[in-house]
Amino acid sequence: METDREGPPALDAIAFDKDGLVPAIAQQRDTGEVLMMAWMNRQAIGETLRTGEVHYWSRSRQALWHKGETSGQIQKLVEIRLDCDGDTLLVIVEQAGVACHTGRRTCFYRSLHGAAWRDIVPVETDPGLLYRD
Amino acid sequence: METDREGPPALDAIAFDKDGLVPAIAQQRDTGEVLMMAWMNRQAIGETLRTGEVHYWSRSRQALWHKGETSGQIQKLVEIRLDCDGDTLLVIVEQAGVACHTGRRTCFYRSLHGAAWRDIVPVETDPGLLYRD
Repeated sequence: METDREGPPALDAIAFDKDGLVPAIAQQRDTGEVLMMAWMNRQAIGETLRTGEVHYWSRSRQALWHKGETSGQIQKLVEIRLDCDGDTLLVIVEQAGVACHTGRRTCFYRSLHGAAWRDIVPVETDPGLLYRD
Repeated sequence: METDREGPPALDAIAFDKDGLVPAIAQQRDTGEVLMMAWMNRQAIGETLRTGEVHYWSRSRQALWHKGETSGQIQKLVEIRLDCDGDTLLVIVEQAGVACHTGRRTCFYRSLHGAAWRDIVPVETDPGLLYRD
């Protein structure tokens, strides 16, 4: 495949799964907040490095996904880290606005308290304003 | 399956994949360090809640994995969070010693600098001492 060769040779160290994907955890640079987890293929990593803005691979749409392209809530790339097994990426970012499509800063807004999940992160931005068109 | 019913009903909100697994990101409580990413099934989450120590599902060994059982580097459970899609967990922990089998605090110790990965996290503990037996 064409995409097998995208990006620098350093990407050969990444152990992509059988679908050519690797989980990517986005963490805010200064606060350390874990914002979201999504998937990247070699093309998404290549585009992230080329543009300086984080791209993922949308498994539901089966398409390259430039995070924030519609909502404006982009993620500026700060650094890409790789774990010991080479099968997970930690992407340090500067998040514009909110990471979650629900208008919350982070997608991890539910916390297990006893028998139930509680929302512990407030909605900062009206999702209707993020996806107007 | 028996394991489909383990743990509290709140776990029904989790969108396990076709193998019954969900990615779980471990983050250190106070520093915000992302320590590792591994996988949990319903049984692993149930055992984590029951014991207060983090359990994963080892895909390579196809077995329940009590993190730190051999090395002593356990993770005390602080909180479990769930993301908007219900398909990723963020597990807030108190990590004893080092999370990585290489003796580093975090598994994400390689950082992409230009064309190459650089080790940016020091080895704190001799891995030979972690896995003596």
